[in-house]
Amino acid sequence: MHIETLLLTLALIWVGAEVFGELAERFRQPAVLGELLAGVVLGVGGLGLVDPRAEIVHLLAEIGVVILLFEIGLEMRLVDLLRVGGASSVVAVVGVVLPLAAGYLAGVAIGAEPVLALFLGATLTATSVGVTARVLRDLGRLDSTEARVILGAAVIDDVLGLVLLTLVTGVVAGGEVTAGTAVRVIAVAVVFLAGALLLGRILVPPGLRIVVRLRSQNALVPTALTLAFLLSVLAARAGSATIVGAFAAGLILAETERRHDIGRDLRSVAHFFVPIFFVVVGAQVDLRHFNPFAPGGGTLLLGVLGLSVIAVLTKWAAGFAPFWIRARKNAIGLGMVPRGEVGLVFAQVGRSSGLLSPEHFAAIVLIVMITTFLAPILLRASLPPRVAASERRGGAVEDLVAGDR
Amino acid sequence: MHIETLLLTLALIWVGAEVFGELAERFRQPAVLGELLAGVVLGVGGLGLVDPRAEIVHLLAEIGVVILLFEIGLEMRLVDLLRVGGASSVVAVVGVVLPLAAGYLAGVAIGAEPVLALFLGATLTATSVGVTARVLRDLGRLDSTEARVILGAAVIDDVLGLVLLTLVTGVVAGGEVTAGTAVRVIAVAVVFLAGALLLGRILVPPGLRIVVRLRSQNALVPTALTLAFLLSVLAARAGSATIVGAFAAGLILAETERRHDIGRDLRSVAHFFVPIFFVVVGAQVDLRHFNPFAPGGGTLLLGVLGLSVIAVLTKWAAGFAPFWIRARKNAIGLGMVPRGEVGLVFAQVGRSSGLLSPEHFAAIVLIVMITTFLAPILLRASLPPRVAASERRGGAVEDLVAGDR
Repeated sequence: MHIETLLLTLALIWVGAEVFGELAERFRQPAVLGELLAGVVLGVGGLGLVDPRAEIVHLLAEIGVVILLFEIGLEMRLVDLLRVGGASSVVAVVGVVLPLAAGYLAGVAIGAEPVLALFLGATLTATSVGVTARVLRDLGRLDSTEARVILGAAVIDDVLGLVLLTLVTGVVAGGEVTAGTAVRVIAVAVVFLAGALLLGRILVPPGLRIVVRLRSQNALVPTALTLAFLLSVLAARAGSATIVGAFAAGLILAETERRHDIGRDLRSVAHFFVPIFFVVVGAQVDLRHFNPFAPGGGTLLLGVLGLSVIAVLTKWAAGFAPFWIRARKNAIGLGMVPRGEVGLVFAQVGRSSGLLSPEHFAAIVLIVMITTFLAPILLRASLPPRVAASERRGGAVEDLVAGDR
Repeated sequence: MHIETLLLTLALIWVGAEVFGELAERFRQPAVLGELLAGVVLGVGGLGLVDPRAEIVHLLAEIGVVILLFEIGLEMRLVDLLRVGGASSVVAVVGVVLPLAAGYLAGVAIGAEPVLALFLGATLTATSVGVTARVLRDLGRLDSTEARVILGAAVIDDVLGLVLLTLVTGVVAGGEVTAGTAVRVIAVAVVFLAGALLLGRILVPPGLRIVVRLRSQNALVPTALTLAFLLSVLAARAGSATIVGAFAAGLILAETERRHDIGRDLRSVAHFFVPIFFVVVGAQVDLRHFNPFAPGGGTLLLGVLGLSVIAVLTKWAAGFAPFWIRARKNAIGLGMVPRGEVGLVFAQVGRSSGLLSPEHFAAIVLIVMITTFLAPILLRASLPPRVAASERRGGAVEDLVAGDR
């Protein structure tokens, strides 16, 4: 890609995200919904101005989701996450088992091969923690019990989703999947997270003090992002996902005395990269595949809608699994609804291995998109926004929201 | 490139820039010299850890130089630049004519074809405003008369350099170059700059007020960079360079009441991107081409050194052209010494058109590098740093510098 095309693409992404984000807020929806819509309008199925398949655009979006998870980790306290660890684990496991089983059965029921049905079920398992975290922040609810359970569960089910991907890919390739393989993949992810957090808490604070002394605040953002990127790479090399490492880096730095400085300096870097991720996710959807008046379009659309209903209901049900905690269980399950990065990784692996036809590929991406579009609406309905969320927009809107309660 | 490789590359670039930048400051040199050295060590001729030819790395470096020029423009006031416009123009024109003539004559003297000699001369004309501006800022001298003359002249000679590139490329392609073509290319650049500044001053302030009202400060960096990137693309499409457009965008926003907010929010985005540019420039140098004990290495090295001397002396002489102003004329000429982006564009055009052999290509890149390495040293010698420049490092160094005067 030429530099001019890249600069133009970035400008378009920011203008689109800004305009549609503003429109979404006018209709009292989280801004992220507008950013996804901006992607649909600008992307392959719309005006064709943003090409999500261009390598550079794709990589900038990946940096965006890494920075987003880093920023989210930076806003969390480890002790708060551990307090809801039991509930998160139960939500995660139930939220993986239910959609996997329901997706597999639905696939077999409509006559799909067992391997394809297993693949369909597996794509429905992993929550997109990025979308949910962004919606929770837009609602001013990042510090609630519900948010901690959801984010903890989303991190755990990302890990479980990646384990499933490893196993299902093995089945697709015709290989043998043993209980040993499964245990090894899970163990690697757990050991990585625990080890990174433990070592990070010992090594990072003295290291950070040296950096701060050397060249003042100049180096704070590059240093923080160096840690985030290195842990992301380590997580991926260890068999987990980049975003798991970025989240761990955020958690580590959240325990240091410089967390507020890092958060403040990081904000404009996040404003640069994060909208790219959401616009690029939206830009991958070509709605024309699902024209009910075109041959096959109607059947495909029905399949997508049916699987989307399964995707929503199974995650919503999982929210009620930790029956003992005091929290809005509706909100927990609905917060787990959006699928995203891991679901799209599944779709890409399936497409490149030849298991998925172009139509099946588009259908899986559309299911991911529908859950992502529904989640903010459902979550907002089940978890009313705090006033703090609308303070950013000034007094008039604040009054509107307050008057609505 | 895979996302893991990219994250690792960025982490390496930042760590290298930080470590070598710190070392450079310990030896009382500007940090940018350390960042260039980090590139040489990490790049193709060193450890081979950073590949400057990877498309994504190259594009991020380009974004870096665009953001750098935007930031520099943001720190300038138009009225100050216009005050030294006459001196800048004279320095620019003399600083293009002298190296072009001397490079051409030197080329013919060592037996090069006239077209190759003309090409050699042309590559020596364009100052790298990026390196100079960064050194001037590191020295705390951005607000001096010398800095204004240098930056004004560098912008003008970038434009002249691009005109030369258009004309010389025409000669290489065997086409006819008329006075009409030359006049048209120059006119486009001047009209673009004047038009952008005039329209920008009318349209941008009300537009900015709308953005600020809509969604608070969230949108400030994306909005400012949207303007910078769109003007960069416009400048390139109009036949000038992207960096000219970015500089113009900075000048426009410097006249608005939000210039301090934009500058503050932009800083961490600049800390992300700008080191990438300088490390990538350094990473392109493979010093092994110039081993004097290898066949041809000695001759190549002598040619490079001779042309580097010409490159330094001609720009230094141009600094004395505006004889009527009160300023350190040594510093003005030496500030024009570094060649960079435009010189490298010349080298790439020459290589892809087949005019330059791999060795000639490497030699031109090395000349660009030598001038870039020499400039901070020479400039620092002729323009002592202000105390403000070392405040960032704390009291000890400040005392050292103060004691040195």
